[in-house]
Amino acid sequence: MGVSRIEADYLIETAFDPRAAAEAMAGEQSSGTFVKVPGQTAELEARSAARVEALSALEPIETPSLPGARRPDNAPIQRATVTLSWPIDNLGPSLPNLMATVSGNLYELGQFSGLRLLNLRLPDAFADAYPGPRFGVEGTRRLSGVVSGPLVGTIIKPSVGFGPQETADLVRALAEADIDFIKDDELQADGPTCPFDQRVEAVMTEIDRAADKTGKKIMYAFNLTGDLDQMRRRHDLVVKRGGTCVMASLNSVGLVGMIELGRHAKLPIHAHRNGWGYLSRHPSLGFSYVAWQKFWRLAGADHMHVNGIRNKFCEDDESVIASARACLTPLFDDKPCLTMPVFSSGQWAGQAFDTYAALGSADLIYAAGGGIMAHPAGPRGGVESIRAAWAAAQAGETLESTAARIPAVGQAVEKFGG
Amino acid sequence: MGVSRIEADYLIETAFDPRAAAEAMAGEQSSGTFVKVPGQTAELEARSAARVEALSALEPIETPSLPGARRPDNAPIQRATVTLSWPIDNLGPSLPNLMATVSGNLYELGQFSGLRLLNLRLPDAFADAYPGPRFGVEGTRRLSGVVSGPLVGTIIKPSVGFGPQETADLVRALAEADIDFIKDDELQADGPTCPFDQRVEAVMTEIDRAADKTGKKIMYAFNLTGDLDQMRRRHDLVVKRGGTCVMASLNSVGLVGMIELGRHAKLPIHAHRNGWGYLSRHPSLGFSYVAWQKFWRLAGADHMHVNGIRNKFCEDDESVIASARACLTPLFDDKPCLTMPVFSSGQWAGQAFDTYAALGSADLIYAAGGGIMAHPAGPRGGVESIRAAWAAAQAGETLESTAARIPAVGQAVEKFGG
Repeated sequence: MGVSRIEADYLIETAFDPRAAAEAMAGEQSSGTFVKVPGQTAELEARSAARVEALSALEPIETPSLPGARRPDNAPIQRATVTLSWPIDNLGPSLPNLMATVSGNLYELGQFSGLRLLNLRLPDAFADAYPGPRFGVEGTRRLSGVVSGPLVGTIIKPSVGFGPQETADLVRALAEADIDFIKDDELQADGPTCPFDQRVEAVMTEIDRAADKTGKKIMYAFNLTGDLDQMRRRHDLVVKRGGTCVMASLNSVGLVGMIELGRHAKLPIHAHRNGWGYLSRHPSLGFSYVAWQKFWRLAGADHMHVNGIRNKFCEDDESVIASARACLTPLFDDKPCLTMPVFSSGQWAGQAFDTYAALGSADLIYAAGGGIMAHPAGPRGGVESIRAAWAAAQAGETLESTAARIPAVGQAVEKFGG
Repeated sequence: MGVSRIEADYLIETAFDPRAAAEAMAGEQSSGTFVKVPGQTAELEARSAARVEALSALEPIETPSLPGARRPDNAPIQRATVTLSWPIDNLGPSLPNLMATVSGNLYELGQFSGLRLLNLRLPDAFADAYPGPRFGVEGTRRLSGVVSGPLVGTIIKPSVGFGPQETADLVRALAEADIDFIKDDELQADGPTCPFDQRVEAVMTEIDRAADKTGKKIMYAFNLTGDLDQMRRRHDLVVKRGGTCVMASLNSVGLVGMIELGRHAKLPIHAHRNGWGYLSRHPSLGFSYVAWQKFWRLAGADHMHVNGIRNKFCEDDESVIASARACLTPLFDDKPCLTMPVFSSGQWAGQAFDTYAALGSADLIYAAGGGIMAHPAGPRGGVESIRAAWAAAQAGETLESTAARIPAVGQAVEKFGG
């Protein structure tokens, strides 16, 4: 924080001298040319060149991670972490142009058989240029009425197939189970099988009905992903109907769409990261979530998906926790832009303990599908088991003692703890 | 073409039975759930389920390409190509939701140690919902005055560092060299060092000056990448100043931003693919360009970068040609949406012959940096060598005979042909 130049950290893998390869990165992404052109002066270089700020060698490896890189004379494959920096005057505080600068052509340079963006530090001008999350942790708690502990949430399944009324019927059952948060599946937006407007009407009818009884308005993240005019219209409909959250798929919408949605939104934006696998699945390619999430927080994401401990996907727990911690780490000294991490995928009461131990915070959404719907005591037991597990975890208890003390947690351990 | 369901082809790699793994893909991306929920009926499944349409086994491999996948009992790693299909009523003709459907969570499924989207076929409803390129090949030829052969182009280098006047000075030199097309670097948008408005003014002054002399208005792709309001304003400024092209970085702007720009634009959109490496560099992850470019063409890209034969990056020639061919292949029977492929990276006169032989078309932009600026006879010789080489290639001549006949080509071979 407090940097005057844009800084980016990378993992690189190269058969060339890592210092020379890093200098090539800096050149390619700023004032370097392969052929000197008229007008290219030392003054210009000094003003605009990217710099290699740090380089730290790692253990070499035997085999290049990615094909296509140049490798003179079967040279050993070096690995290193590298920090580059750019003058902000090259681009100004623009998120789309930041993407082209710190990512862009770098991944195709012939020197590299691996290149991954690990982290990013931005001058304060970016904080002035973009709103960041308007609601974040505090606003989400206020709108959902969940003053402490995680929002206990779930996903409407099947992903597609349900019409508006079937969706609403499930919402009613989940309301009776005392859920805090429900989200559409990312595959459910505004198809003819389940039109957005009718879904909002049917779902909000159930949410209002439950709120009349309990005083608690369930936060439902309506997936408004679509073209810009569609997203704005859908957002406005949710506002008008009294909803408290909208959802968008980041990799479907893209940066400019998210920035526009962020500027338009009067509700928290639940940011879904589907597609994250193609950006991250190879450990020597793409982005670390720690770097990537900064773009979307600045654009206005209030909630961001981080997967979950012991998930059904391919990500390890260490990576999941690093992602969640990043969401809760301030972006700027004077503008923290905190975003609520969303845990999901194979979650049930059991992971509450390890998650809290690793994160030290319950400022999160904890979304379970089977962990709620398939609980032996039904959805109410599922919600209760998760809420109780989190309270116990925050109080320093173990899963074992909590399972012995609270029947819903005990039943969850029996069902899901194998 | 003419499909009634959305179809997508994938390369998959799995330690499980490929058929079962493909069924899991179909389930995850449609009506499948891990836990049956109330209301999930056979009728719903029949209406909304994705289907496995085809599966073709490939040679197994020894080692998983990507970490994190499940592998029971050290099972062999199977590879296959798979075609899935979806009813369009699941999502409607929406490009952002198409992205979540055919990509989305698939890349993170635990069954797969490799997954790549290879191709995509769309029902005609998508052709009705999106404009596609407004200019494409025909409109670009009309605006540039290049009636046959490629547009001979170049990139302003250094990427950043030049101010508006230095940029204009280079444009003047390139105009004197009889260039057809010039583009901003993707790192040059609207930073304080080279503000967009002043660059447009300075560059268009030179382009107008040259047009007054020669009658030919050079097409200059001004990089307007930025937030939506910025892009619209910059576009309008280029129109007002008489410019004939704007440029945007696809991975910086994203789908929704490009759709909006496409709807707004009154000029051809030169679509830069920087960042493509992180989407494609691993052969068992991400996207093939053949699939990926379809999204952007429908959104309105008039020109799309495809790298070049014998480029300085990591891509092989076969992949480059497949990409270019895809851009020139109709998307729909009644709406071809042809986009002009842009060749660049290490290009000079020499690759014209192989490029034409492989592609059978000169409906393209051929952009050279060093191949023009570093030509022994200066930029005029560089442009002449490329134009002559293409004319000769189209006439069935060889590089050797052309080099013997035309001094500018001969000089290019001597300089770049090593």
